[in-house]
Parts: sequence; structure tokens; C-alpha cells
Amino acid sequence: MISVVILGTGNVAKHLFDAFWDIEEVNVRQVIGRNDYTLSYFKDKVDTSTDFSKIEEADIFLIAVSDDAVAEVAQFLNRKKGIVAHTSGSVPISALGNQVRRGVFYPLQSFSEGKSINFKTVPLCIEAENKKDLKLLQQLAQLVSLEVHEISSDQRKSIHLAAVFANNFSNHLFTIASEICTDNNLPFSILTPLIKETVHKLDFLVPLEAQTGPAKRNDLKTMESHLNQLKNKNYQDIYSLLSKSIKEKYGKKL
Amino acid sequence: MISVVILGTGNVAKHLFDAFWDIEEVNVRQVIGRNDYTLSYFKDKVDTSTDFSKIEEADIFLIAVSDDAVAEVAQFLNRKKGIVAHTSGSVPISALGNQVRRGVFYPLQSFSEGKSINFKTVPLCIEAENKKDLKLLQQLAQLVSLEVHEISSDQRKSIHLAAVFANNFSNHLFTIASEICTDNNLPFSILTPLIKETVHKLDFLVPLEAQTGPAKRNDLKTMESHLNQLKNKNYQDIYSLLSKSIKEKYGKKL
Repeated sequence: MISVVILGTGNVAKHLFDAFWDIEEVNVRQVIGRNDYTLSYFKDKVDTSTDFSKIEEADIFLIAVSDDAVAEVAQFLNRKKGIVAHTSGSVPISALGNQVRRGVFYPLQSFSEGKSINFKTVPLCIEAENKKDLKLLQQLAQLVSLEVHEISSDQRKSIHLAAVFANNFSNHLFTIASEICTDNNLPFSILTPLIKETVHKLDFLVPLEAQTGPAKRNDLKTMESHLNQLKNKNYQDIYSLLSKSIKEKYGKKL
Repeated sequence: MISVVILGTGNVAKHLFDAFWDIEEVNVRQVIGRNDYTLSYFKDKVDTSTDFSKIEEADIFLIAVSDDAVAEVAQFLNRKKGIVAHTSGSVPISALGNQVRRGVFYPLQSFSEGKSINFKTVPLCIEAENKKDLKLLQQLAQLVSLEVHEISSDQRKSIHLAAVFANNFSNHLFTIASEICTDNNLPFSILTPLIKETVHKLDFLVPLEAQTGPAKRNDLKTMESHLNQLKNKNYQDIYSLLSKSIKEKYGKKL
């Protein structure tokens, strides 16, 4: 049995809590958060508190708060004997301060309010400063996910950057595509089978090999026509720059 | 029974042929193509020819060749009585020339060699110049797909542009993300659950509402650290420009 205290009440805290809830070998002893309203999600099931000076003992303390607040919350755990692990993609392990047993327990997924997720498929990136702690974090991680990776703070920084391209930026491209649809009386849903297939292909091909389109073919006529259709200056610049980057990648003359 | 002749032997021709093959109400009478080798895919099942002067009669002729060759292939069909429809996203209906019955039968999907697809989910964008022809194209389309849309040439031009953002450009972002992973000894597969969730969310939220990340939060510290991590000039420019576009979209100060 691994005992856990969760600090934080946002999406990551909720999804972690829900994942642990189904597992017999994990005992969530307490959830701590400043906000009484968001704490109510947990109240029926587990001990909760808004008082950071009344944190119970546990094997693992999981800090699931905003990046900027990690260091501050960690201070309340300075005298604890358990592992103190944060759950952030972009915060180094050193931000935790003077704890003896520091760790990271980072779920690489974008969690949304009210949208459940199969936690078994969520990659968990764990880090610790000695083998014993790593093993315990690994045990906890493997109880909830089939995808557990030992990842250094430097690697995690790179994953976070890669995730911005793969998730945040691609979503913005979908926003642009949806605007073009709306402006032309077309439902955005007409594009979703194509978007799904783009991603489905990644199970079979690396994205470098899956690339298609006018920029890869260096089809200047189509690219010029597309640029003329775009009225928004940012979108024109994005079209030009991404086309340039694709052309260079595939060795086309600029 | 609708009789069809397919002109072309590439991915679109093959996927259309396979979709029609299962449907009793469609009779593919012939496949015509210049390339004897690529024609071999069809030879066991249907009459084939490399001779464009020997095209049989049919209710509908589907031109599934590269955009640049559509007009040239259409000339061989000048005296046919059936509907002459091309299958391209970016070619206007007028490119077909002097046929009496012109049409478009555009499957909005990215087809790959050797990768089968559930055609029922592929949006078919159809266009014709009179109601009778539109009805026949609609009939054929509804036999193979559940997603049939009547789309004008202007709208199709916009869909094609939107598809470049949604498919070609997002795939390039996945390529950049995969390079960052490789450079840091990380498997790209660690990102695929996140990418799949990004797309899965589009079934519940419009992309404008699904946006997250440092640019939307205007988290300058993280963005600066990300830019410092990138060594490739194009990727730095893409990071800056997409962040700028996201910030403006959500009303953040630049």
C-alpha cells in the first residue's frame, strides 16, 4: 500500500485523484488546497484541508499546483519524511527546495475539466535523486499507467517544448482552419476526418515521411493562390514561414 | 445501377475503386491510365486500358489524376454523354473544358498507399452545373459515404486552404516535435497520447476554446526559455510567430 497526499485542486489534481481512486494499492490520505470551493470535489471521498500547516504524513506528496506556486507549496513539506514530487512539465526538480527526498511525477497529457481520460494510456515521466525513491515513484506510476518513463529534468524541459509544437501550436492551426471554414459558410466538422487521419498515420509513419501538400511538392502556383486567399496578416506570415520550413526540410529551392 | 469509368491509377483512384467495389449499385466499367504498371492493381477485377481513345461509355467519368493533368485528360472525354467529374480539391470545375455535363467529386481525405480507410467517414464534396447531374453525383456519393456535401468551386478552394493548415502544417509541427524528441533521446511515441487527445477534444470543443499553453497565458518566462532551447532558425521563427498569433487571438499585449 502506498499512501499519498495531493496538494492542489485543479485538473491535474482531480485526474490523478480519480486514477488513484480505483487502485486498491494506493491510499489517498488527504487533499490540500487553498480554495474551499474547488476542494469540494474531493470532500465526500477523502480528508481535505485548506490549512497547509496540517498536512498528514504519507509515502509520497504530489504537488499539483500552477508552475509558479510549486516552490512555495514545497516549503510546507520541508520536514516531511516522504517523497515530495511535483507534477509539472517545465519546473526543474531543484525548484522543490531543501527536501531530502525530491521527485517529479509528470503526466504528459492535456487534462480538461469534466472530460475523463483513460489514465492507463497517459505517459508518466518520473524523476528522483536516488534509486530507492525512483523505485517507489515507479511503483505508484505503474499502478495507474502502462507508460512509465524515467526522464531527467533536462529531458522534461525538451518534452515540454515539443509538446507546445505538438499540442498548443497544432491546435492554433486548427483554429485558423476553422476560421477559414466559418468565413466560407462551411462546417469545421468537414475537416475532422482529415485531422484524425493525419494523427492516425503517426501510428504507421514518422511525421517526416507522412508530409504531403503544396509546400513539399514546391507547387508555387497553389501556394500563391492560397496566400492571396488569406486576409489576416499573421495567417499569411504563418503560411509563408511554415511553407518555407517544409521546403527547406525536403531540399526544395527557395 | 450507376456505371463509372475511373481515369487515373494513383491513391485517390485506388481508394475510390475499392470503395465502389463493395457496392452492388455501382458498376466500375473500366480504369484508364497511362502507366501499365500501376494499372495492374485493377486488372484482375475490371477492364483496363492505357489507350485514352478507347474509353467506354458510362454514367459518370471520374478523373483522378494530378491537378496539372486534369484539363488534358478531360479533353479525351469531350464527346461523352456521361458526367465528367474531377476529384481535386484545388481545381475549379471550369478547368474541365467544353464538356456539356461537368462535375466535381472531391473526397476530402489524405490517402496513403497501402493504408485502407473507412470510406463511409470520408466527406465527399460534390458540385455540378444542373440539378439532374447534382442528383446523380449525390446518389453515387451517398452509396459510399455518410458525409456528402454540396460545395461550390469557391468553397472548395477555401476547404483546400484550410486543409493545408489542418493537415500539412500540423504534420510539420509534429515533425519539429519529433526532432526535438530525437535530439534529446526521447521516443516520439511519448507525445502521441497528447496529440491524440488534442484532436479528440475537437469532438467536444471548438479549437478556439481548447487552446492552452504559455502563449495563451502570456507566460513570457517559459516562452523565452523555449526560444533559447531551439537551435534551428526556422523553428525559432515558427515558435515566435505562432505565439504572437495566439497572443493576439486571445487579446494579450505583445
